[in-house]
Amino acid sequence: MKKSTAKKSAQRNAFYAQSGGVTAVINASAAGVIETAARYPKAIGKVYAGRHGIVGALEEDLIDCSKESLTTIAGLRHTPAGAFGSARFKLKGLDKNRAEYERLIEIFKAHNIGYFFYNGGNDSMDTAHKVAQMGETLGYPITCIGVPKTVDNDLPFTDACPGFGSVAKYVAISTLEASLDVASMARTSTKVFVMEVMGRHAGWIAAAGGLAGKGRDAPPHVILFPEIVFDREAFLARVKETVERVGYCVIVVSEGTAYADGRFLADAGTKDAFGHTQLGGVGPLVANMVREAHGYKYHWAVADYLQRAARHIASKVDVEQAYAMGKAAVELAVKGHNAVMPIVVRKSSNPYRWTVGHVALARVANVEKKVPRDFITADGFGITEKCRRYLLPLIGGGDPPPYREGLPVYVKLKGVAVRKKLPPFKV
Amino acid sequence: MKKSTAKKSAQRNAFYAQSGGVTAVINASAAGVIETAARYPKAIGKVYAGRHGIVGALEEDLIDCSKESLTTIAGLRHTPAGAFGSARFKLKGLDKNRAEYERLIEIFKAHNIGYFFYNGGNDSMDTAHKVAQMGETLGYPITCIGVPKTVDNDLPFTDACPGFGSVAKYVAISTLEASLDVASMARTSTKVFVMEVMGRHAGWIAAAGGLAGKGRDAPPHVILFPEIVFDREAFLARVKETVERVGYCVIVVSEGTAYADGRFLADAGTKDAFGHTQLGGVGPLVANMVREAHGYKYHWAVADYLQRAARHIASKVDVEQAYAMGKAAVELAVKGHNAVMPIVVRKSSNPYRWTVGHVALARVANVEKKVPRDFITADGFGITEKCRRYLLPLIGGGDPPPYREGLPVYVKLKGVAVRKKLPPFKV
Repeated sequence: MKKSTAKKSAQRNAFYAQSGGVTAVINASAAGVIETAARYPKAIGKVYAGRHGIVGALEEDLIDCSKESLTTIAGLRHTPAGAFGSARFKLKGLDKNRAEYERLIEIFKAHNIGYFFYNGGNDSMDTAHKVAQMGETLGYPITCIGVPKTVDNDLPFTDACPGFGSVAKYVAISTLEASLDVASMARTSTKVFVMEVMGRHAGWIAAAGGLAGKGRDAPPHVILFPEIVFDREAFLARVKETVERVGYCVIVVSEGTAYADGRFLADAGTKDAFGHTQLGGVGPLVANMVREAHGYKYHWAVADYLQRAARHIASKVDVEQAYAMGKAAVELAVKGHNAVMPIVVRKSSNPYRWTVGHVALARVANVEKKVPRDFITADGFGITEKCRRYLLPLIGGGDPPPYREGLPVYVKLKGVAVRKKLPPFKV
Repeated sequence: MKKSTAKKSAQRNAFYAQSGGVTAVINASAAGVIETAARYPKAIGKVYAGRHGIVGALEEDLIDCSKESLTTIAGLRHTPAGAFGSARFKLKGLDKNRAEYERLIEIFKAHNIGYFFYNGGNDSMDTAHKVAQMGETLGYPITCIGVPKTVDNDLPFTDACPGFGSVAKYVAISTLEASLDVASMARTSTKVFVMEVMGRHAGWIAAAGGLAGKGRDAPPHVILFPEIVFDREAFLARVKETVERVGYCVIVVSEGTAYADGRFLADAGTKDAFGHTQLGGVGPLVANMVREAHGYKYHWAVADYLQRAARHIASKVDVEQAYAMGKAAVELAVKGHNAVMPIVVRKSSNPYRWTVGHVALARVANVEKKVPRDFITADGFGITEKCRRYLLPLIGGGDPPPYREGLPVYVKLKGVAVRKKLPPFKV
């Protein structure tokens, strides 16, 4: 038995992984986990991160975080996207895919892993919950803590999901800036600007576009939410009326905007000459719909990954909450909690005050929090004051990264692999 | 005769207008013009701005800048887009449309305008030049100074066009951030990311995407320039080779990318089921081309107005040069120059040092500066060190706007109209 093990026999290693779509601040949660774990050496040994999320665990492709410098780990706080690699990979139920769970157990045993920190959204909380169940079922003691993350802001219980505040800030500012642009051009040129944003099932990001302006004539003039059935005639009428009154019209459209039968606008679109579904997203589709009906010259933008990776304009509140969730996950684990997820609890909106709570994973898994109806105006095209009061604190403050030669300095891990101990496994 | 006129008989008013596509810093040039004009009260009276560019002059729709507070004028320095309204409106030649020129003369006479400051790109420098010629031809003394502006960076003689540095910074940072995102996702999901940028005839903005990384494996792996004929096979081979070697591929494509016969890729695209030209731009088109050839999962972004309106991430150098061009325009006018445009003259690249020069409008009008061949790698898919040395100083430094409640505070003009003195004119 090695000396270090002898000295710290209660100490077990931790596994950390990033899951699903990444955000501008998920690495801040990673920093929170890794830096906090180091403060509990009696309980937690090394932190091993899965390279490409849970796939790294299954393949025994683990990054030894202790080989990274303290500066690199601290730099994760200002580095967007998934520094360890993420994965879109959902473990099936224990009954359907026992082999994967047994493999996870083997990996955990082989590397003395007693903590499982899983940083993701709804699906990932479900996975974390299943790993916790597996621990009980198969008799392997593993403490499972979910670390909330999703730009979509659709996790329940928590005041906001880390990642959302920053994308909300990006979308609000981009909508504001592009609106000034189209207002400048409208007299002789572009009259309609369409901004497509993420949020396939929940319209939180689209709602954030509403922060760009206040009042009937201020942009955005139309927001299309997944929560509101798309009404082509009402939409076109609103655009026309806006252009005639204000001179131009700014539209924020969620990628999840859908018809009454549930078909996404983007999926219900036209085919090209070869029979392929047309290439554009819902942004260009809606813009073209307006042109065909009214003949207005348009521009459209699809921010796509830009919106969720935009660490340069991240919300300070979001960065702090992301870090706090990582930190709280470790603290909950050390205190003996299992199968829980830390959450942000709002104490007041103005000034914004929040604390950290937690909730059982069983209650979070696969539950989607949508934009409530009273956050959306009666006509379905805007946000209410109640929504604005909820959103504004989440985009508060800036936390710019360091810059060199005009560009942000984002850190890159050395990514030293933990020595493999088991035979290969095919994912 | 009024007292004020009697006291300052040599004093004449100035006309200022914004023209063409707006930028993150064109209002900084406006601030330079207005604040500097105030320093020469013996020569310059009021500054009247055209509402919606030259259209405002023709329609006698003039904004009296003296009615704006000094704080508002100073705030223009950090406010994107065209605060006075811009216009896509090109005056025809004197021989073809004498009525418009005669109308301009009438307006200038009616409002004692002796200075014409026109803030725009190639077309606008042509207009400013024509107004100067008109002054001579019709015997009306008018000092015409162009103020350079264009995100495309395609004006000759000047080291850079105000507006470009900021869009370059935005595109470089956005490409960097989105690249980290796709790198995170590539193992199980998105392998190809396409970023469409502006620049219909010159690839300067696309080149700026190249600042996101350095070296063969660093993103962006492929840049498509208007200056390089699009070669489908070579492009697809490069993408495949990159995904196989690096795991993912980031592509920056200029909207002006074209086939050998000059057709833009975006125009040569497919039709939808109704015979309409497909809705997407060149970004989704290229992404789809890759999917059809190789089957890779892709994402694409079209930043559109977001890139040129992104004052929140403007380059400090760009803001300073924009202001300096407005200031120099007034100083040139006061010194008796006519039919010229101030330019930025680079003295050294590292450290970046520049001064202000000027050039005759006749030499600038309608000349497009493209990306030189030796700024593009031999294979046509990247930028050279020479290009990097040119570009890097232009994105240097930040100049963030003030913020309130998480959003930039951009100024809005009162826009008090000058009393009309002439009958209406139909534009």
